[in-house]
Parts: sequence; structure tokens; C-alpha cells
Amino acid sequence: MFELAEIGHKIDKTLYKKEVPVLREALLDAQYELKEHSEFAVIILINGVDGAGKGETVNLLNEWMDPRLISTCAFAAPSNEEREKPHMWRYWRALAPKGKIGVLFGSWYTDPILNRVTGKLKSTKLDRQIDDIVHFEKMLAHEGVLLLKFWFHLSKDKQKKRLQQLEKDPNTRWRVTRQDWKNFKKYDKFARVSEHVLRETSTADAPWIVVEGEDANYRSLTVGKLLLKEILNRLEAQPEPIEASDAAPLLPPIDDLQLLDTLQLEQEYSKEDYKEELEQLQGRLNLLSRHPKFKEHSVVAVFEGNDAAGKGGSIRRITAALDARQFTIIPVAAPTEDERVQPYLWRFWQHIPRKGRITIFDRSWYGRVLVERVEGFCKEADWMRAYSEINDFEEQLAVQGAIIVKFWLAISKDEQLKRFKEREAIGFKRFKITEEDWRNREKWDDYVCAVGDMVERTSTDIAPWTLVEANNKYYARIKILKTLCEAIEKVLG
Amino acid sequence: MFELAEIGHKIDKTLYKKEVPVLREALLDAQYELKEHSEFAVIILINGVDGAGKGETVNLLNEWMDPRLISTCAFAAPSNEEREKPHMWRYWRALAPKGKIGVLFGSWYTDPILNRVTGKLKSTKLDRQIDDIVHFEKMLAHEGVLLLKFWFHLSKDKQKKRLQQLEKDPNTRWRVTRQDWKNFKKYDKFARVSEHVLRETSTADAPWIVVEGEDANYRSLTVGKLLLKEILNRLEAQPEPIEASDAAPLLPPIDDLQLLDTLQLEQEYSKEDYKEELEQLQGRLNLLSRHPKFKEHSVVAVFEGNDAAGKGGSIRRITAALDARQFTIIPVAAPTEDERVQPYLWRFWQHIPRKGRITIFDRSWYGRVLVERVEGFCKEADWMRAYSEINDFEEQLAVQGAIIVKFWLAISKDEQLKRFKEREAIGFKRFKITEEDWRNREKWDDYVCAVGDMVERTSTDIAPWTLVEANNKYYARIKILKTLCEAIEKVLG
Repeated sequence: MFELAEIGHKIDKTLYKKEVPVLREALLDAQYELKEHSEFAVIILINGVDGAGKGETVNLLNEWMDPRLISTCAFAAPSNEEREKPHMWRYWRALAPKGKIGVLFGSWYTDPILNRVTGKLKSTKLDRQIDDIVHFEKMLAHEGVLLLKFWFHLSKDKQKKRLQQLEKDPNTRWRVTRQDWKNFKKYDKFARVSEHVLRETSTADAPWIVVEGEDANYRSLTVGKLLLKEILNRLEAQPEPIEASDAAPLLPPIDDLQLLDTLQLEQEYSKEDYKEELEQLQGRLNLLSRHPKFKEHSVVAVFEGNDAAGKGGSIRRITAALDARQFTIIPVAAPTEDERVQPYLWRFWQHIPRKGRITIFDRSWYGRVLVERVEGFCKEADWMRAYSEINDFEEQLAVQGAIIVKFWLAISKDEQLKRFKEREAIGFKRFKITEEDWRNREKWDDYVCAVGDMVERTSTDIAPWTLVEANNKYYARIKILKTLCEAIEKVLG
Repeated sequence: MFELAEIGHKIDKTLYKKEVPVLREALLDAQYELKEHSEFAVIILINGVDGAGKGETVNLLNEWMDPRLISTCAFAAPSNEEREKPHMWRYWRALAPKGKIGVLFGSWYTDPILNRVTGKLKSTKLDRQIDDIVHFEKMLAHEGVLLLKFWFHLSKDKQKKRLQQLEKDPNTRWRVTRQDWKNFKKYDKFARVSEHVLRETSTADAPWIVVEGEDANYRSLTVGKLLLKEILNRLEAQPEPIEASDAAPLLPPIDDLQLLDTLQLEQEYSKEDYKEELEQLQGRLNLLSRHPKFKEHSVVAVFEGNDAAGKGGSIRRITAALDARQFTIIPVAAPTEDERVQPYLWRFWQHIPRKGRITIFDRSWYGRVLVERVEGFCKEADWMRAYSEINDFEEQLAVQGAIIVKFWLAISKDEQLKRFKEREAIGFKRFKITEEDWRNREKWDDYVCAVGDMVERTSTDIAPWTLVEANNKYYARIKILKTLCEAIEKVLG
């Protein structure tokens, strides 16, 4: 994989001086056009061997182009907060919005490779991380991100020479750290591991571009020209008509029996039983939230359901048992401007709880396969891929110790009508009922179908769905609290 | 100040049980109305004596109301990142947006009071912090925030009894920490300092509400009723007609001589001299940015100026000298949705550099007293108060070690016309010129006047304005780089 990057590529000074001004002008032009249309983001990964010109390239890009339209992120050791969130959290935070270029100095590749080289990561675990990366980059591609992955390479001899050279010059000495020499000793292993990772992650969506790092002119011009070409290609390309998904279309069950039809929505449960059990369960939940082992975990609770099914009331019965410093409720509505220029899951990543904390999502990322599917707010291909993207997302949360519970609160169509009318009649509930609620109700059958597919495709061992028969509010709240307590107990042991 | 909160207030159980359901319903109703109109934010500070029911009140508010419309923030010891930013940074981050209620458990009062009690803060410094707080709260009031400051009080005897009581019950034992007992030993000093702080910060905009903390029923009902009353008052109030400012209106100089008229915009400077000096200055800046002492500081560089005055080009000459990992450029345009529901300066607080970093603002918070003033996007009272709010803001940055440089790039009206036409003609510059630029040009004289006022009112010792004669780009870039280097050198010594 690195053979072509060890053959001594070189661009002489005259040619370089001739080409650069033209390239810069074209790059600036491309940048403004990118900004003007704001239809996609460009993300550039800068990885490779120490001393191969990574830092210089990052600086050069900022010098050649309009740095106001570039966001550069360099990743040092993770902070406390970053360590308490899933591995990918800090990369999600650093994604450039549509219309901009994000330069990532170091990336989601750095830790897996270095950890494997130093033996902190077993090879089977590395392969799993590679899988995660491939999924992640596929998602970026689907979201329209133009991802350019540069790997700067130097042969072993050349690396040694380069580090010595940098050290000799007082102006560049600071660039060479003790860690660089330590890494150099592991050159062969580093090359072997990198090659494996690069091979496994060179996909059609995002191939690696290996650049020989020795000659600065060659290196810079290669990166600049490639970047220009890719941006222009994308700007000129007609938006691809990915209306249809690769997967077979979802068919409603041929006997018309839907998952939600199987629920016994009406449940007997008296107010007296409720009061007693509620208090017990809230006490149990409170103790669990203060369990010493709870500090090693977090809770992500998702609430979805028919309009007026009682999500808010159920959430309040949970939070009443908790210390207000420990939980956050995220009500999910239409995305804001800042959110619309990012990949779909981006806004949910912003709210991932730290360890010891509880985040309750009142509606969630499942909007993609519910309202957005039913209302046609996104293309079929988009909501079809959402199932696996969501599963990946939840797996990352679980790996980091999150306890995930997901509730679908189901009421009957009659019960909903009753509650809508009630809400319209009662003063302090009038804000709870909107035009939109009435409109959604007209699409009842579509939702029934969407919920069935959603549960089938995203109810997993690590993040199971709980269907809640919610015509009787008391019954529903108790079932939810009990499920939550049991999920936490299962993990705390 | 605490006398009324030591007389044994009490609400009996029957009355409490009767009043609470009515209150809760009304609070929910008020919450939804607040959300519906989204015209102001409510911020509730919970402070006071340990064991006086602060935590319980925070929980109660979340239980009584719709917790989805409440954001609760508890402040523990500051994180690494927080310690590298101005003291108020974390409170700015925690402000609730319009339409929501923010509950702050602990607040900007906690550290000043505790640090004074433990002797870490001298009384003169405390008084300065009190001044800062008064200014900050005045700003919140002007921005329409409804600020409710609750102080929960217990007499010394009562506090002792209460802590013992909490410790006896296994369910509440966790609430009492060793620190609480340590604090108790300093009760008298704590009371003295608190009283002083409360007195000095009980302003017409945001008076303190002292609540006796012993009886939970009294405490809860007092807070709930007050909160309800204040929200309803505000919801019912007609928006105040603060069209005019308290201050005298700004008059243009009676002899018509404006500050910008005094500049010699045309400067002789050859390309050869420029090339040589540019390289020297960039080298000097690069060394400064890697100076060991630089790690204790940060740089905030503000660029304002006429359209087409060369801000972008000047910024690029600075960043070319820097490591791309060290700087961020923040281009400032119209605020986004998320930004519009916060106080004006909020979005700039988001981008304050950590120590060792450089943030360059391409346009800035001065938009308030420039474009917003000239275009009438905000009321006179708003831009008039902006001068002192900005001075407060910059002072906080400086206190934290920021080196602040502010540039106004001035070109003549003829030069601007030349550049506009050039931009329209040249392909890769065509995105740089918009309809708006032409419109702004029509208000040239208004801007001249606004710039004069701005410089007069915000050019301070710690954050001086530098007026840059920019008809000759070379001259302008060199002046900017030199000013920046000198500002850093002055601080690094």
C-alpha cells in the first residue's frame, strides 16, 4: 500500500512557484462556491507518519484558502468529559457544517492504530473498531459529506533523516517531541498496523489517499490539487437520485396483523394500587440512582408514542424520584438551523449523558423512522439506512456503559380522541394540543406500520423497546418505572 | 436582612394539601404560556445556608412543573476548561433560552461568598466582584430575563438541628457532607459576608428573596407562589416602551469633524518593503506564539472595518504565522435561532479562547453599535447600553489573561467603490460582494458617526482600538501585524 509513496516523488521549485498561485485562486473560488450553496461539508483527515508534513499541511491549507471557512481541530489526549462519553463523541463534536471545510489533525484512526501498536488493543478489538469506522464513514457519505482521508508516508530511513533535520533547525526543533522518537522505534509495527487499517477502511465512499511526505512541494501540490478536484467534481455533480433504497421495500404484513394490534391497550389498574406501587418504585429508583456502581453507568431513556399517550406525565413520575442535579430532559422538536447543516444524528450526540447521569429524550432520533418517514420529510433511502445507523449509535452508548430503555406509549384511536377533546376543554392543557396533533391523527395507520418496522429493526438486546399499553395512565406509568428499575438492576447486578 | 426569616414561619399540612394542587396547575399553565410566547427567560437562583432546603426546592420545582421546560444546572468545582476561561463563562453557558425556566443550584454568588468566608478573597476584591455581578444582572434585566434570586436561610441553632436530623435518617444521610459541617463552624462569618453581599446586590431589577428554610411546607409554597406571581405579572405586562435611553443622545461633533476624517488613509508603502517586513513580523509573531509565557495568556483579536477594507487578507497574514492548532477564526454573521433566544453577548461567550490559544473575530460584538445601530435592528436603549456591557465583557477577558487587540480598517469612499467594481469583475472574488455591501455604502456617513462613538466609548487601556489606514493594503497589514506583536510583547514582558 505504501510502495508508491517511497519512490522519491519531487516537484521542482520553478514548477511549484508557477502552479501555486493558480491553484490557490481556484481553491478560494471553490471555497466560496461551496459556502454559497452550502449543500455539503468537506472533511479532511490528516494522518500518517510523524515528520511527514502533517502539521505543515494543516497550516498550508489555512494559508492558501480562506481560513474563515475552515475549522481546524487537533485532537490531543481526551479530556475528562470526553473520557466519560463514547469514543466517537469528540469527533461528532468536531464535524464541519455544510458549506465549510473541516480539517481534522489526527482523527478517529489515531487511537485505534496507536493503541494496537503499543499493544493496548487486541487485534480482534481493532477489527471491531474498524467496523465501527466503516459504518461511521458510510453514514457521513450518505449525509453528503465529502470525506478526504490523507495519509502522509515516509520510509523508515526517510523518517529518521527528517526527524533529525527538524531537530537541527532551531525554528523547527519544537515540532519533534520525545514521543516522536519513541514512536520511531516502533516504525515497523506501526507500518504493519497502519497498512492493515488503511486497507480495511479504503472503501468506495472514502478511499485513502497516500501521499509521499518527503518533498514539501510534491506533498503540498498533491493535496491541494486533489482537494480542488474533489470539491469541483462534487459541486458540478447533479445531486444523485438516491430516491430508492438498496434494501427491499418494507411491506405491511400480508395478513394485515400489525404489532400494535396485538396489545391489550385497556388494562385494569386502580388508583389505590397505583399510589402504593408508585411510591415503592420511586423509592427503588432513587436508591438505584445513588448506588455506588451507578457512577460507572448512565441512563438513556427514550420516550415515543401516540400524541396524548402520556409521555410527559410518565417522565414526571420518573424525575420525581431523582435528584434534579442528576437528570436532563431533552424535548425533541424540529431541528434548528445549526442542526440542519449537520448529519442527522449530530444533535442527539450533543446530549449524551456523562457517567452517573440520566438523560430522558422526549421524542428522539426515532423521529427519522416515524414522523419523517410518514410525512415524507426525508427520502426512503434516508429512513431505511437510519435503522442501522441508530443501532450503531445505541451500541456505542452501550459499550460506554449506558443503560438504554426505550418506550412506545400506545393508546387506542378512541382514547386519543377523548384526550384531545379533554385537552382542548381544559385551560391549562390547551397548549398541549395543536393543529399538528390533529393532522398526525389522520395518518394513524401509517404510524402503526412505521412503529412495527421500527420495533422489528431496532429492538436489540442492548437497547430493547418496551411497548406500553397506555389507555390506563396508572398502568402505563407503573410499567415504565418497573421496566426502568429492572434495566438498571440488571446492569448493577 | 435575615430577621424575618428566623421567626418560625409555618404552614400546616391541611392548608398545604389544599393549596398545592391549585398552585401546580397554575404553574404548569404559566409554563406553557411562557413557552408559547417565548419572549423572555426565567432564571431562578437557589442559594443560601446548607440544610435550608435548597436541593429539595430544586427537585420540587422539577416535580411540580413540566421538567421538559426547565433546565437545571448545579455547579460543582470548575473543570479544567472552565478554569482557563473567565469566571463567568460557565454561568453564561448555563443561561436558559427564552421560553424556558433555568434553575441554577449555586450561582455566581457561591464562589465570591465562600472565598471571602475562607479568606481566599480580600474584601476589596469581593466588592469588585459584587460590582461585576450587579452589572451582569442589570444586563440580564435589560435583555428581558426574569431573574428570581432565592436565599434560603436558617438560624444557627436551626441549622445545627437540621443537619443532625438529616444525618439520622438513612434516606437523607447522603445529603450531609463533611464540608457542610466545616461550613457550619463558620456560620457567623458566613452570615456576615452573605448579608453584605445580599444587601449590595439587592437591586430594583433583581431583589433578593430571603426564605426561612425550616418548615418545608412554608418554604415550598413561598417559592412556588412567588414564582407564579412573577411569571404571570411579566406575561401580562405590556412590553415596556424603553425606546429612549436614559443617557443623553449622542450628538455628532458640532463642527462636523469626525474621528475617521483625521486619518491619512493614503499611505506610501512599496511591495518590496512589505515583503521584507512581512516575513520579519510573521517570524516575530510565530516566536511569540511559542513563548513559554504565552501559555498563561490568550489573544482575542477583533476585526471591524468598511466593507472591502481588507479584513480577510489581513487575517490571513496573521494566521500564516501561526500553528493551525492554535487559532480559531470566528466569522460573525446574523445570529442563528439558538443565538436569538439568548442575551446579545451570549454567542460571543461561546468562542472565548482557552489559555495559549488565539481567537480572531471577523466582525464581532461591535455589530451592536455599528450595523445594528445604523440599520435600526435594535433600539437606541439597547445599543447605548452595549458600550458598557462590552467594556465589562472585555474587562473579564483581560482579567483572565487575554490580550485584546481591536482593529478598525478604514478606506475612503472612492477606494471602496474601486474595490467593489474589481470584485464584481474578478471571478473568484465575486462571492465577496453582495447587494448588502452596496446598501451599507449608502449609509456611509452614519457609519462614520457610529465608529467615532464606538472608539470614544470602548477604546480602553486593556482593550484599545487601533485605527488602520487601509487604502494601501500593504501598509495596513504591516500596521496590524506590528500592533499585534507589540501588544503581546508588552504583556509577556
